[in-house]
Amino acid sequence: MVKVSKTKISELGLIDYFSKNLRSKSPSVVRGIGDDAAVIKISKDKYLLSTSDMLIEGRHFKKTDNLYDIGSKAIACSLSDIAAMGGEPKFALISVGLPKRYKLKDVKELFSGIKKTAGRFSIDIIGGDTNQSDKLVLDVAMMGIVKPKNITLREGAKVGDYIFVTGALGGSIYGQHLRFLPRVKESLYLTNRFKLNSMIDISDGLVLDLWRILKSSRVGAVIFESLIPKSKDAKSLEEVLYMGEDFELLFTVSKKDAEKILDKIRKKEIRFPLSFIGKIINKKQQLWLVDKNIRLKRLKPQGYLHF
Amino acid sequence: MVKVSKTKISELGLIDYFSKNLRSKSPSVVRGIGDDAAVIKISKDKYLLSTSDMLIEGRHFKKTDNLYDIGSKAIACSLSDIAAMGGEPKFALISVGLPKRYKLKDVKELFSGIKKTAGRFSIDIIGGDTNQSDKLVLDVAMMGIVKPKNITLREGAKVGDYIFVTGALGGSIYGQHLRFLPRVKESLYLTNRFKLNSMIDISDGLVLDLWRILKSSRVGAVIFESLIPKSKDAKSLEEVLYMGEDFELLFTVSKKDAEKILDKIRKKEIRFPLSFIGKIINKKQQLWLVDKNIRLKRLKPQGYLHF
Repeated sequence: MVKVSKTKISELGLIDYFSKNLRSKSPSVVRGIGDDAAVIKISKDKYLLSTSDMLIEGRHFKKTDNLYDIGSKAIACSLSDIAAMGGEPKFALISVGLPKRYKLKDVKELFSGIKKTAGRFSIDIIGGDTNQSDKLVLDVAMMGIVKPKNITLREGAKVGDYIFVTGALGGSIYGQHLRFLPRVKESLYLTNRFKLNSMIDISDGLVLDLWRILKSSRVGAVIFESLIPKSKDAKSLEEVLYMGEDFELLFTVSKKDAEKILDKIRKKEIRFPLSFIGKIINKKQQLWLVDKNIRLKRLKPQGYLHF
Repeated sequence: MVKVSKTKISELGLIDYFSKNLRSKSPSVVRGIGDDAAVIKISKDKYLLSTSDMLIEGRHFKKTDNLYDIGSKAIACSLSDIAAMGGEPKFALISVGLPKRYKLKDVKELFSGIKKTAGRFSIDIIGGDTNQSDKLVLDVAMMGIVKPKNITLREGAKVGDYIFVTGALGGSIYGQHLRFLPRVKESLYLTNRFKLNSMIDISDGLVLDLWRILKSSRVGAVIFESLIPKSKDAKSLEEVLYMGEDFELLFTVSKKDAEKILDKIRKKEIRFPLSFIGKIINKKQQLWLVDKNIRLKRLKPQGYLHF
């Protein structure tokens, strides 16, 4: 059922290639290619986040999917990227390639989805581009603001960190991937109260996105099957581990902060679903799963890739 | 020869629809949809410009066009938008949909075009997205910085203003549209020395883009055929007036500043091609051409639309 592909040289190789070949030169670029969003210093206490996501008919959604949902998803994906950096989303530019077959009512439906989700998170659509295209293509470039102390990169995970994940995983392919609610408020709640050492949003599956943290941070991890929150739509452990587009937040914190978080979860002071799923260990890029029978199993970096 | 389309309700109508329906709410948005780039106040003396442009195979370039040129053009289009606002381009996010048929060498060629033109204008590529697509699609979101006093909107043209254009127009379809040099330095030269009341870059033809200034500024214009600089590639007056993708700057200044500019052109202190082509008049949205036989002819807002 799940489209699980091996870590493809193609996409991951390309990203490595671009990261090396398009290294930023400006001193104001705190973080360029290689995280959920780029970070640019604009003043002492204000950094600009920016990210872009392209959605293509037949890859990220089906031709027959609801246009309102597609518009909403285009915004939500970028919101999730800004959330994964600990930021507050602010502005978006939207470029669209519209199929000739669309009538004005189709375009309006698409844009009402964009507008609704943008409005819900107080995003201003400040510009964009419209073109004709064979297939529907949307590209959303989003900007946000983040306090320097709240920035959460992929590279900050430390040995001994506790790993947490919001929501429940798996089953997104059955429609949820179009209708998820990006964890913007949850990210702000967490980054304003705790020191998150690393964070990423799960767009390509728990295993692949956790592996990205491990790779950037030069650490390993062990996760426990019994602790991983499973979506009611998930049909197998494979879906929970490898299915993309959950758009939940995956982050690591020190033991001290983890205990505070666990205490708040127990006291129901944290009202959104949040689970402790494992720990960061001193094994570079190694990811281990403790399964239900307490057997240790090494997981390979594979997941859902849009390539 | 020229693909001249009537002002299509489709694209212009859509832009109007979006402008009305996606009005910005944040007080920091100085200018949202409806100009070459959005303007956001980030501090008292620094405003952020942002713009996005989508290029699609079969619309903005041919499948057989040189990939280096296509990559270069994707960056150059956005550079031209930032220039048209009086700004200094700084950062770009690039989303690409890459056809399955591409080999690594094709991708490298595309990116070497992107990298070369970005480097030439000191742009940092800070992020993006890669996907697979049937046809090649590129979306560049670019950010720039502008001093508040230098911002040049479409809406500031005043009756009596002199109209100027950089470079020479027409014939871009014969290859030049892939290899143009955006007028970034020229824009900075002009905005740092003169008060430009309005400016736009010519992406959809002189007539349509001038008409956009007239519409935004609620004024009219008269231009003189004999004064309009013609590209050596242009095969007819029609191409000079209506052909898109010249990416030259079109701007208006007061008579006083115009005289200073004309003096500098005469003394060869302005070293780039710059021509006085007409004047702003008190006739809302009316555009008149004085042809070679000194006959007055009204021009309709038509040009090259990518829709």
